[in-house]
Amino acid sequence: MQRRIDPTTLFAVILAGGSGTRFWPLSRESCPKQMLQIVGEDTLLRQTVRRIQGFVPSDHIWIVTTAERAEDIRFHVNALEPRVEEIKIITEPAGRNTAAAIGLAATCLHRQCPGSVMMIMPSDHAIPDREKFLGDLELAVQGASDDFLVTFGIRPTRPETGYGYIKIRQSEKSTPLRKVARFLEKPDFPTAKAFLSEGIYFWNSGIFVWKSSKILSEIKSHLPRLYATLQEMDGTETGRSDWSKRYAELEPVSIDRGVLEASQDVWMIPGRFRWSDLGSWAALDEVTEKDPANNILRGNAVDIDSRNSIVFSDKRLVATIGLRDMVVVDTPDATLVVPKERTQDVRKIVDLLKQAGREEHLIHQTVERPWGNYTVLQKGEGYKVKRIVVRPGSRLSLQRHSRRSEHWVVVSGAARITREDEVYLLQRNESTFIPLKAKHRLENSGKEPLHIIEVQSGDYVEEDDIECFDDDYKRV
Amino acid sequence: MQRRIDPTTLFAVILAGGSGTRFWPLSRESCPKQMLQIVGEDTLLRQTVRRIQGFVPSDHIWIVTTAERAEDIRFHVNALEPRVEEIKIITEPAGRNTAAAIGLAATCLHRQCPGSVMMIMPSDHAIPDREKFLGDLELAVQGASDDFLVTFGIRPTRPETGYGYIKIRQSEKSTPLRKVARFLEKPDFPTAKAFLSEGIYFWNSGIFVWKSSKILSEIKSHLPRLYATLQEMDGTETGRSDWSKRYAELEPVSIDRGVLEASQDVWMIPGRFRWSDLGSWAALDEVTEKDPANNILRGNAVDIDSRNSIVFSDKRLVATIGLRDMVVVDTPDATLVVPKERTQDVRKIVDLLKQAGREEHLIHQTVERPWGNYTVLQKGEGYKVKRIVVRPGSRLSLQRHSRRSEHWVVVSGAARITREDEVYLLQRNESTFIPLKAKHRLENSGKEPLHIIEVQSGDYVEEDDIECFDDDYKRV
Repeated sequence: MQRRIDPTTLFAVILAGGSGTRFWPLSRESCPKQMLQIVGEDTLLRQTVRRIQGFVPSDHIWIVTTAERAEDIRFHVNALEPRVEEIKIITEPAGRNTAAAIGLAATCLHRQCPGSVMMIMPSDHAIPDREKFLGDLELAVQGASDDFLVTFGIRPTRPETGYGYIKIRQSEKSTPLRKVARFLEKPDFPTAKAFLSEGIYFWNSGIFVWKSSKILSEIKSHLPRLYATLQEMDGTETGRSDWSKRYAELEPVSIDRGVLEASQDVWMIPGRFRWSDLGSWAALDEVTEKDPANNILRGNAVDIDSRNSIVFSDKRLVATIGLRDMVVVDTPDATLVVPKERTQDVRKIVDLLKQAGREEHLIHQTVERPWGNYTVLQKGEGYKVKRIVVRPGSRLSLQRHSRRSEHWVVVSGAARITREDEVYLLQRNESTFIPLKAKHRLENSGKEPLHIIEVQSGDYVEEDDIECFDDDYKRV
Repeated sequence: MQRRIDPTTLFAVILAGGSGTRFWPLSRESCPKQMLQIVGEDTLLRQTVRRIQGFVPSDHIWIVTTAERAEDIRFHVNALEPRVEEIKIITEPAGRNTAAAIGLAATCLHRQCPGSVMMIMPSDHAIPDREKFLGDLELAVQGASDDFLVTFGIRPTRPETGYGYIKIRQSEKSTPLRKVARFLEKPDFPTAKAFLSEGIYFWNSGIFVWKSSKILSEIKSHLPRLYATLQEMDGTETGRSDWSKRYAELEPVSIDRGVLEASQDVWMIPGRFRWSDLGSWAALDEVTEKDPANNILRGNAVDIDSRNSIVFSDKRLVATIGLRDMVVVDTPDATLVVPKERTQDVRKIVDLLKQAGREEHLIHQTVERPWGNYTVLQKGEGYKVKRIVVRPGSRLSLQRHSRRSEHWVVVSGAARITREDEVYLLQRNESTFIPLKAKHRLENSGKEPLHIIEVQSGDYVEEDDIECFDDDYKRV
């Protein structure tokens, strides 16, 4: 029954440009939802990569993200064991919604492999049933080889108003592919209730399979300006910065609205796998194991008598008593308390923080870096205390500060220090001083992680007081 | 109308032995409720002292507390400005409820001033109306001079089941003192409701006024064993440790149950002041100003749409959305989330922590010391990072550690360091190293607070690795 598809033409395209605020305070601008481990044993992005690995080889997995996020995404994915350095990152000049992101990936892919089939999937959804998912994907690839645009619908289990819907035609029942009648925006509650009973409405999962040639020809028809911009990029490296500007000025439009609603060749597969788009904290209920009282308690949580509640903590203690349908999320610098039915409003908190010029929506107290990470332990008038962790074999950039000096104490591991013309080693329980304006570099010279306590002292102790001279990671 | 009382016989006795767990995580074993600033501009104990200062001179204010807590209480009260060093601390060998504590104070007081009148008050209640309170106290003192045992009742405003009640006789209406018919334990809800409508039931405030001679003679009649134990203490300093043991073995009984219920001379004044015993987080509602949505939001709280809720935070951000009748309390190492109607169960969380051998119920992350305070910023394998704040003119003990060395960086102020035979000064942005087993001392040599970042390094970094050689505060 199955025609064989040439596996060398099969590519996974993972969309990882999102900047979700709805999982604040666990998500931050510098650490969006796809980089969080909120469900399962790994982050959502890495789970997405693992899910598709084996179905296609690693060098057929492409990740599309924005220039701003590309470096973080690369280091994040490369921390996968076994390491998958071959994964290609496609960089958008700026995030312009899914039509542009998919168009960009299709253009690059088509250039590399004109007969390619793209399996497009979000990086931040939960799909606990890998085997069922890959089985359905197999069917979709068959459909794509017939030049169909194949989407995945999820059979609704409740009158959900937070998803878009796909309506299928009622007739064709003999094939796993169902002809799509239309796409529908998020409905109101009575409409969603009606959808639930009728049996021809499905949740739009945002997973698509098609040939790169097919989607490009559809984009050409329905989004000619996007198509023209993509064509310009193709091959004109010299004009690239100019092209970036034009890309960034594209009208943001989703592939559903911009192309699929207008196309005549759209089919849907009813997905047999469990799925959640994890649109809010409350969505964890759909895909996470619960305790007998229907709670999800994670980390250092002590609870008495709560029910149907979600408590996410880390090292700090979170004690809860008698909660009903509540969400409590604790991070080192911020705590959120919200009823499940209000979790969509978390973004309003993020907006308030933005307006107030605060930092809690931007970064975590622990900031990941290619060489390791740092945690701000305390900031006071004229000083800042950090714990710095450097991975074995890694080093920070050669740098200089004009308004602060630094005291370093090694509390674990071994360091090689460069300070102006000196280079010297520091063992555990040894310290050194980096004077104002001294060029310096910190390197892990051992085989274990290096832990340093850094005390900065000066009239200005912000991150932007830094002059870089040499960096292993080519950061600006 | 008023007889003059000899003011030299008037003493305030503040009961400060409590170890309340119901305000966890703000209260800890080392920081009980009376030492918290949960209402008003100062801690409850210091508010209690200020309330009575002026009514009696400072050296007529006695505080009764346990040996365990006495040092902390002394430093806590002495931080009052203007300093009130004269306040006397009466130390119980162990907390044995109010009959013993009041008996002990009465015995000491009677020895010093046989005609003395004691005004006994808890250290952890809220009384926002000082003038009204002092006016009522004046009346009570008149009654005490007639050898009455005078109590204060509060007219109920709701069917409260968390308080004891005083029932008065209906007849006498011509005097502000009302004859007490009986004392009643905490009632059930229907009973409390009946009390509310009848008009002769009052909340028992735990505030009492009487002569020391009178209460001792009542104790002699109704609690002969307590009386005998108190008499033994009186004058037999040599047998003191033996006496301490006997005191600690006394049956704990309240003054209400042990003496007042049995006595024929008990009168009550209906207090005209606002009052709360602050029995739980929910009790804050009675004595705290609220915002238009009936919330009490303190510290770094960002809220959207909450009502009737209490949010206590400090520096860390607490974000809340759409809460109803909830309490959220955030401290550097622990967060509590509980509906108001369950706040009585906070003690169960403390019990769980005790059973689990944890620390979050014992101490705060910032620990107050006579010389200032320290905060543990981070504890890791083989190291600990602290911020140490030393008050001007103060110094830590001369000490030695056998399993850790210490790195100190001055981030603010100026330090005088003793290290073995050396004594040297350290300015801001200077550091020093205290090797394992070196005798050392840290002193604030300037006029501003001294802030030090300390990095401890060693195989064991707990507080009990310390050998003290000299201490300004005579601590063991």
